[in-house]
Amino acid sequence: MRIAIDAMGGDHAPKEIVIGTEYAARNNSDINYVLYGEESEVRKYLTDDLSNIEIIHTNEKIEADDDPVRAVRRKKEASMVLAASDVKEGKADALFSCGNTGALVAAGLLVVGRFPNVDRPALMSTLPAFSGSRQEFEFLDLGANSDAKPVNILQHAILGTHYAKDIRQIENPTVGLLNIGTEENKGNDLNKKAYNLLRDEPSINFYGNVEARDLLNGLVDIIVTDGFTGNAVLKTMEGTTSTMKKVIADAILSGGLKTKLGGFLVKDAISQLGDSLDYDKVGGAILIGVKAPVLKSHGSSKREVVEYTLEKTKNILLSGVIDHMAEAFSE
Amino acid sequence: MRIAIDAMGGDHAPKEIVIGTEYAARNNSDINYVLYGEESEVRKYLTDDLSNIEIIHTNEKIEADDDPVRAVRRKKEASMVLAASDVKEGKADALFSCGNTGALVAAGLLVVGRFPNVDRPALMSTLPAFSGSRQEFEFLDLGANSDAKPVNILQHAILGTHYAKDIRQIENPTVGLLNIGTEENKGNDLNKKAYNLLRDEPSINFYGNVEARDLLNGLVDIIVTDGFTGNAVLKTMEGTTSTMKKVIADAILSGGLKTKLGGFLVKDAISQLGDSLDYDKVGGAILIGVKAPVLKSHGSSKREVVEYTLEKTKNILLSGVIDHMAEAFSE
Repeated sequence: MRIAIDAMGGDHAPKEIVIGTEYAARNNSDINYVLYGEESEVRKYLTDDLSNIEIIHTNEKIEADDDPVRAVRRKKEASMVLAASDVKEGKADALFSCGNTGALVAAGLLVVGRFPNVDRPALMSTLPAFSGSRQEFEFLDLGANSDAKPVNILQHAILGTHYAKDIRQIENPTVGLLNIGTEENKGNDLNKKAYNLLRDEPSINFYGNVEARDLLNGLVDIIVTDGFTGNAVLKTMEGTTSTMKKVIADAILSGGLKTKLGGFLVKDAISQLGDSLDYDKVGGAILIGVKAPVLKSHGSSKREVVEYTLEKTKNILLSGVIDHMAEAFSE
Repeated sequence: MRIAIDAMGGDHAPKEIVIGTEYAARNNSDINYVLYGEESEVRKYLTDDLSNIEIIHTNEKIEADDDPVRAVRRKKEASMVLAASDVKEGKADALFSCGNTGALVAAGLLVVGRFPNVDRPALMSTLPAFSGSRQEFEFLDLGANSDAKPVNILQHAILGTHYAKDIRQIENPTVGLLNIGTEENKGNDLNKKAYNLLRDEPSINFYGNVEARDLLNGLVDIIVTDGFTGNAVLKTMEGTTSTMKKVIADAILSGGLKTKLGGFLVKDAISQLGDSLDYDKVGGAILIGVKAPVLKSHGSSKREVVEYTLEKTKNILLSGVIDHMAEAFSE
């Protein structure tokens, strides 16, 4: 089993990518890790001479501000594109990058390729739920496909269901549709049509509409929405969380001695907050609907996140979920 | 000047509506307040015999779970519909309700009526901004029109600009488009087209795209988006805020003595948080694009909020903003 790693993507590449990869490789001698990037740079950060780490040299890379589709089409020798090509050709089984998200979506779609009957892949993250019996839920599409059709949302619901079954071991996962009301006839034209498709699909367990204010309340295992709304909602969560932390900090700073003392005492409780709602820090995102696992972590990822995401990539490969998705969407 | 008030709409109607109206009437002897509702019920809560309060009796009312358009069409004698009819006929100048939001939007659109060249009205709220030089911004559409066309977003930007000029005294208010990236070509088809219309419109001061994570950062005076996204984003803010308050409370409760003591000391600082992001509590919403001020406060509104929103209604009437909007959208 081989995992192709874009060693040059991310704010701390190649250093943190390489070190995180070595962490993962030490614990998984049966898995091969292939680092794509500037060989001398990559080699600098390898301390052991592990037989399950390989380097594929290239000078080219995709920058954070490159136009995604153009970069993937033109920079054939970029580390991310070479890695994706090797996945396509069966020389590797999965792709991991901390680089340009749009470019990774394009590389997944244009190079690795989608399942024949999946019209558009989706970006999916596992987000935390804070009440009820669920501690997590899958949320998609986070922005791979901003002009969704109803059938895209249906396909994403089926893909998410397979993921929740195989990776999170939920027998009959529930699917909710993000909407602006809970009743059946709520929402815009897209979501009214998506509702009907989801309701009539026998292979999923459809719960109904879920309002945005209940997103974090653990009502269902999977929440589907179009990529524009998903991205806007996710970034609203991040922005609201960071604003609130600032507001609390300001209120404490401008308070009296009593409040300042209190602030000092609850500092740790408050600082955990931001991270729990920052999807990048809770495990990155997976591009779902393509023929192999394509995983993404935040540009700011350090070695621990890289190692964690590579473990997750391994688990996805071992679970057989890609085969199950392929069967569901075979012709 | 006469303000028509739906005395029967809201969780605490008619009691809190009537008492709040009396508060407002005491301070504004030159303005007439007309309460629509069950006369004996309404009279019960009037303590003074003010000459500027009038009651129009009706037995019918719109319930919170009524289908909005059907209720407005069929319940001709409902307090909200009677009040709207009197605005349409020039017997009153503005409409206020704490009742069913969808029904109020329908009453505004179908009874009060829109400006000839405004295709769809929008729900707009003033939200708090937490950094930069701005303390507030206008956010629309919050859900009056969930299937928006690019031209609707343009019209809403022009309406919002008039509001910011006349009500908030901003000379040349900036308009941002909520989008999933800041570059010109970002977003779905709707927002790419809306961007071009906004950029080319001489009567507004277009800033460009604003990402959802920057919503609360005070980058612009007005943020426009379609009603589906606006509603989803607003409810995400509310849900995230309430989740975070719960998470902080839990972290403090489950912490050691030190953390518990700290929690006690910062309690006030934290409890202010929720309210500052709950748009209903910071002034309700206005239905913009119709021929008269139509204002809405939350169903849970108490007398202070009713009084506050009636003051706001008066200021809108006195500002001349409705005339300016009418001119901008005259044929």
